[in-house]
Amino acid sequence: MARFAVIGAGNGGRALAGHLRLAGHDVVLYNRDVGDEYEQLLKPIAETGAIQLVGAIEGVARGVEVTTSLETAVKGANTVIVVVPAIAHQPLAAAMARYLAPGQTILLTPGRTFGAYEFLSVLRASGCAHRITVAETYSLPYAARLRPGNQVVVAQQKDWIPVATIPAADVHGVVETLRPLFPGLLPQEHVLYTSLLNLGAMFHPAGTLLNASRIELQGGGFPFYTEGMTPSVCQVIERMDAERRAIGARFGLDLPTAAEMTSKAYGVPGDSLYTVLRANTAYDVGRAPESLTHRYVYEDTNTGLVPMVSLADLVGVPAPTMRAMVELACAMTGTDFWQTGRDVRRLGLTYPDPAELIAVLRDGHVPGSAS
Amino acid sequence: MARFAVIGAGNGGRALAGHLRLAGHDVVLYNRDVGDEYEQLLKPIAETGAIQLVGAIEGVARGVEVTTSLETAVKGANTVIVVVPAIAHQPLAAAMARYLAPGQTILLTPGRTFGAYEFLSVLRASGCAHRITVAETYSLPYAARLRPGNQVVVAQQKDWIPVATIPAADVHGVVETLRPLFPGLLPQEHVLYTSLLNLGAMFHPAGTLLNASRIELQGGGFPFYTEGMTPSVCQVIERMDAERRAIGARFGLDLPTAAEMTSKAYGVPGDSLYTVLRANTAYDVGRAPESLTHRYVYEDTNTGLVPMVSLADLVGVPAPTMRAMVELACAMTGTDFWQTGRDVRRLGLTYPDPAELIAVLRDGHVPGSAS
Repeated sequence: MARFAVIGAGNGGRALAGHLRLAGHDVVLYNRDVGDEYEQLLKPIAETGAIQLVGAIEGVARGVEVTTSLETAVKGANTVIVVVPAIAHQPLAAAMARYLAPGQTILLTPGRTFGAYEFLSVLRASGCAHRITVAETYSLPYAARLRPGNQVVVAQQKDWIPVATIPAADVHGVVETLRPLFPGLLPQEHVLYTSLLNLGAMFHPAGTLLNASRIELQGGGFPFYTEGMTPSVCQVIERMDAERRAIGARFGLDLPTAAEMTSKAYGVPGDSLYTVLRANTAYDVGRAPESLTHRYVYEDTNTGLVPMVSLADLVGVPAPTMRAMVELACAMTGTDFWQTGRDVRRLGLTYPDPAELIAVLRDGHVPGSAS
Repeated sequence: MARFAVIGAGNGGRALAGHLRLAGHDVVLYNRDVGDEYEQLLKPIAETGAIQLVGAIEGVARGVEVTTSLETAVKGANTVIVVVPAIAHQPLAAAMARYLAPGQTILLTPGRTFGAYEFLSVLRASGCAHRITVAETYSLPYAARLRPGNQVVVAQQKDWIPVATIPAADVHGVVETLRPLFPGLLPQEHVLYTSLLNLGAMFHPAGTLLNASRIELQGGGFPFYTEGMTPSVCQVIERMDAERRAIGARFGLDLPTAAEMTSKAYGVPGDSLYTVLRANTAYDVGRAPESLTHRYVYEDTNTGLVPMVSLADLVGVPAPTMRAMVELACAMTGTDFWQTGRDVRRLGLTYPDPAELIAVLRDGHVPGSAS
């Protein structure tokens, strides 16, 4: 049995920690101790050592360690699973760099767009020169939701979870370790594929910003994936999605549509996005944010739309609808996401030749570093 | 007393026809006879010859002529007042060209952006070589609303109605004729000013598209200018509005903000757009469209946002938020407004020098025409 660190004790982190522990692994669950996060997220588990999973995975996981020390969490873990909003990847990598040891694996779930590459770049810039594997998936392996106490509802395990790593060849080791728990894991050739599967970037900003007036009037809380996703909202998403796929095509990738991804991940039928969303009962748990100051806007614009639009500009693919969504996010929140997001120029990923960019993402060469 | 033709028998057209008739003018009210438009709009007036105004203007106007013949309406009218959605200006000008006589005045209310210039260009292209004055205002002189029967509620007469003409010097004659009825009329130096006051382009697409999910769920009908204009929607509008003013500044124009225009037009106080809209009781009558297939999207994108963005591009002023709104309109409706709108290139207004463009709009020289 291996030792896992799970970084982030929200819905997904608790579900993962409980699931890994039920499978017999040693698990340490980390969360920041900021404000009342410890009280809310870790204390109930610290007191009982138990997490109860209900739904698609059932059982009481006992003996889950908890910690607010990143060092305690990371040291000795074979695999560190990062389950925090992707806008926290950068400071987390900087803080984690000193505790890592050769041969450790970090899995970002989700990595959003260029998560693995950014994480590795920050590790290198923060002085970590060890051979580390950084993996990313496009989404969490579950649709999960916290309940009061230590209960986590796992509505459904996803059937289709592409995963890729830097260095690229390490993906098979990651799949071997984790597929017993997550049968949906599917190894991919490189992280450009997983980075361009960013479904959150398609769903979250559009679903939130195009319902902003309703969110402000009513305080959100309505069913996000059904009531929020009316035909015109779905049309905007499908247009952004076509732009995302056109970027992929420029790199020789045949990316699935958002409707196909949802259909595959949850095993629901349907052709159009609107049909699939209405058929997917696992999405019933998704509620609209209470305000625009939410990761559905900040995380997914910064780590999804901005990197995709900047990549589109780099390779000359039009992305007017994604660009429009970023502008809408800027206007509605007064934040300049073009400055704060994962722009390919800021990541140093401005290679003139598509094959060269893929090569960089495949072998993990971070320009300006020794590794 | 003069003879007026009022083209379009909707809210604004009826209010105008009634108001002009109450002031003792001869008035002929025209509307197309398409489908049931005659039955709905003209027949009730044809049967009684009367229009009842209530609210800010009170009285029963008797002896208003009605017609579905454009020729009957236009011939012999000193002034032809056009009160139709601006997307109908082009076919209307083409149809009207043959009936016009030297010295007639056409007033577009509203003209939206480049309405007067487009109208004159189409008249010329359709063979009308007479000296015609084309005037435009940025909006209707009233907030008006039809009631069943022949009643029109005029919620308020606007206090501030800038007007300009092609040729520019003719504006004084127009003001002299109409100011007895509309004290708010204010002559401007040229139609670039009135074209860039397009308030509908700021309010209508944003208010509709950013409430699209609610419109689709509930069928619209909610108070457009209050419930629909939540803080984040107002922020988007204020950002578009800043872009509009930056275009004006490039031509030496100090344009009022949307909040200032609303404040001036209706005499309500307030600094921010949000405050002004909430204070303006005249806007209570404004209801959200029942669907996205509405002039609030089609008219104002084609004749407001597209011309302004294309002008911004011409003179190198950034207009990312207006552009985003056009993209949103394209995505939500499946219409390519970039192809259908009043692009400056399609209007032939691509002069490298700002002063030259103003000169063209001032003297009415339509390139490629004899006049």
